Amino acid sequence: MTAPDPAVEAYLETTREARLGAYLELLRIPSISALPEHAADVRRAAEWVAAELGRIGFEHVEVSETGGHPVVYADWLNAEGAPTVLLYCHYDVQPVDPIELWDTAPFEPFVRDGRVIGRGASDDKSGVAMHLQAAEALFVTRGGLPLNLRICFEGEEESSSPSLSAWLEANRHRLGADVAIISDTGFFEGNIPAITQSIRGMLYTQIDVTGATLDLHSGSYGGNVENPANALARIIAELKDRGGVVQVPGFYDDVEPLDAATRARLAETPFDAEAFRERIGVPALAGEADYTPVEREGVRPTLDVNGIWGGFQGEGSKTIIPAHAHAKVSMRLVANQDPDRIWESYREYVAAVAPPGVRVEIRKLGTGRPSATPIDHPVVRAAAAALEATFGREPVFRRSGGSIPVAEMLERQLGLTVVLVGFFNPDDNAHAPNESMVLANYETGIRTICQLWDLLGRGDPGGD
Amino acid sequence: MTAPDPAVEAYLETTREARLGAYLELLRIPSISALPEHAADVRRAAEWVAAELGRIGFEHVEVSETGGHPVVYADWLNAEGAPTVLLYCHYDVQPVDPIELWDTAPFEPFVRDGRVIGRGASDDKSGVAMHLQAAEALFVTRGGLPLNLRICFEGEEESSSPSLSAWLEANRHRLGADVAIISDTGFFEGNIPAITQSIRGMLYTQIDVTGATLDLHSGSYGGNVENPANALARIIAELKDRGGVVQVPGFYDDVEPLDAATRARLAETPFDAEAFRERIGVPALAGEADYTPVEREGVRPTLDVNGIWGGFQGEGSKTIIPAHAHAKVSMRLVANQDPDRIWESYREYVAAVAPPGVRVEIRKLGTGRPSATPIDHPVVRAAAAALEATFGREPVFRRSGGSIPVAEMLERQLGLTVVLVGFFNPDDNAHAPNESMVLANYETGIRTICQLWDLLGRGDPGGD
Repeated sequence: MTAPDPAVEAYLETTREARLGAYLELLRIPSISALPEHAADVRRAAEWVAAELGRIGFEHVEVSETGGHPVVYADWLNAEGAPTVLLYCHYDVQPVDPIELWDTAPFEPFVRDGRVIGRGASDDKSGVAMHLQAAEALFVTRGGLPLNLRICFEGEEESSSPSLSAWLEANRHRLGADVAIISDTGFFEGNIPAITQSIRGMLYTQIDVTGATLDLHSGSYGGNVENPANALARIIAELKDRGGVVQVPGFYDDVEPLDAATRARLAETPFDAEAFRERIGVPALAGEADYTPVEREGVRPTLDVNGIWGGFQGEGSKTIIPAHAHAKVSMRLVANQDPDRIWESYREYVAAVAPPGVRVEIRKLGTGRPSATPIDHPVVRAAAAALEATFGREPVFRRSGGSIPVAEMLERQLGLTVVLVGFFNPDDNAHAPNESMVLANYETGIRTICQLWDLLGRGDPGGD
Repeated sequence: MTAPDPAVEAYLETTREARLGAYLELLRIPSISALPEHAADVRRAAEWVAAELGRIGFEHVEVSETGGHPVVYADWLNAEGAPTVLLYCHYDVQPVDPIELWDTAPFEPFVRDGRVIGRGASDDKSGVAMHLQAAEALFVTRGGLPLNLRICFEGEEESSSPSLSAWLEANRHRLGADVAIISDTGFFEGNIPAITQSIRGMLYTQIDVTGATLDLHSGSYGGNVENPANALARIIAELKDRGGVVQVPGFYDDVEPLDAATRARLAETPFDAEAFRERIGVPALAGEADYTPVEREGVRPTLDVNGIWGGFQGEGSKTIIPAHAHAKVSMRLVANQDPDRIWESYREYVAAVAPPGVRVEIRKLGTGRPSATPIDHPVVRAAAAALEATFGREPVFRRSGGSIPVAEMLERQLGLTVVLVGFFNPDDNAHAPNESMVLANYETGIRTICQLWDLLGRGDPGGD
């Protein structure tokens, strides 16, 4: 059974303002892992988090080198007989462009209408700060934690975690645990508590098309050379058909067939397509005709251009044929697609559909495998009970469209079951301008974490 | 018959250094007409040119308002009985991006290996400066010009001349002339003197594709919304087929058929495809299979993306679906294509091929009609004679791929025959980084202009 600890609750109430201040302090550090010019900021965030862990009471705190941005490791292993949880969050954030669409500076966070606004407010500095503050509440009121915790806070999640796999391999000796909890996911539409049952994998690529050595005058050369921007458009148009079906050969070969039972369960998800459409502001939803929106997000792979550029982007007209054009193209993968196998097929296909007269380079910028958790696992049941006790509503089980490469790494490399519990809201604008975090989710979520740890410490899944 | 005037030649020799200095002074003014932040610079260039015209000896000098950037008008009409020429050049220049590919600051011109390097060095401040210096040579050595001249130096040519047509209409009373000479064109490959016999027209457009209100997380939304960048790529891919044939309905309806005689004449052009390919650095030439490169440039229409952008353009990976994506798309038109008619068909076609789920806006940023001059016109023959006398080689007649909207305006609105004589070199990088002007062409071209004016003043076409 779940029940709030009055001492913990009293502590959290009296420290509310100071805790908000600490969370905003973390948000002020522009730890953008994708941009080399922010490398020092990423390190500064790591050091801030490490200092907090040490101050609160964790042991073996270390800003651990990876070759890229550091991992912050810490542990507290003094709950004899209790289970050990490996907790993962990430302290790095997405870039901020288009900066002009932010209402305020992304790294000067503030509270408005019950939300904290700022880059990383939800994804995933809320996860870092909430777990720090839940642990502090327990350390202060009880002198220790009800379970053993190993902390792994990553600094490269928003850059596809290029160094984490090697770091996990090199640190196996201090990563032993009964289960891994990743807090980097969110609630369902309408702020309904949710546990993420599966996440999509990822293959992130860049296509670079080069023509002439310099931009050419479109009058003098137009008609006699292939235009790199036109060529790039043609390549991209060949990647999906008008129905949203990816054309890369073999792309769907390993996609797990969607059985009737799964479809029925997914159909129960309380999804309001019109509210969803209106919230994001598109004229109509679009996607594979044979699947529902919930299926398209959770159990179907897809392909998107994440950015495209080349030639003149200013006001007015400039009559050139661009010397080069570029696109970031990524695929979201589902079980049992293998990103490495898809990469090989994709690379060959792009080269095959590219027009002659230009040079085409295709690069792999990151991969992540799809991942899933059994919904009857005791830790999943405990998390569901803690969510219901604190948020007053039974959580839904989501099949998320997002990708968390680390989930698959923890499963495959460390043999751990991974449970995904997070507190973002679907309209938090993660990865977009004016990213936010619902302050009520932040505060209530800290209570959820405390109760979940109590349940796990007692070996009690909390459910019926 | 043509012959150099020894007094003029002596004057030009002794003033060479000072004249180069004046030309570089003009190049230092960043008169980029397409960028609103350079409006004051465009005006400064107009005032510089007007001051020079007044100093040299022209009359009725005026920086004449147009609603956009000004036209510099001046005249000298004291050559009684001699013909009157309306001379057109433009003092505005192209934008400078990609700025990182310039070897030096674009508006700090300098001389290297016999070339002046700087934005506008050829296109078209060479035209302005050469005609100013030719006129000054005649004023100084003879006290006047051998013919009547009306000067019209435009400041919006690189922005598709949006104000010129209305200005011509409002200034008809002072634009009466026997012929118009436009100096904004160049020589043939290999620096062979050339007279431009025809130029292509232009339709310049922008396509804006909008999806959600904000960038979306590609995991949470990928598969359920149309991606504006993918949609834009699809639209662009539909504009031309793989053979380079434009797919806009009716696009080729009014294209003048290419007869055997024209093909034979064009085949005589001394064009070295391999040298051309190597100079611009493309792996292979590309274009309509049924036409030669010279035909593709001169007598075939084409379509090019001039710029494309949307979403994340930085280092690394950002997993968004861009809220919007954009492209500049322009078409080069040939006789007898009507840009307004093509615009209507293009707009309908883009809307028709656009995928659902996004909003597509299509804008017209500029148009220009194609134009041609009869090659047996007396002024064409005089220009050919002056070129041969000064450069030592008979000029070729070019069918240029470029577009000069003013040529068609002068023809249609003022009823003037337009002769196109200019001195750029094909490898001058007009519109590109490291734009240059061959100094020998600049100097010899001033002699060509003096001799052409002498021939026209005597009513002597100069040929046999």
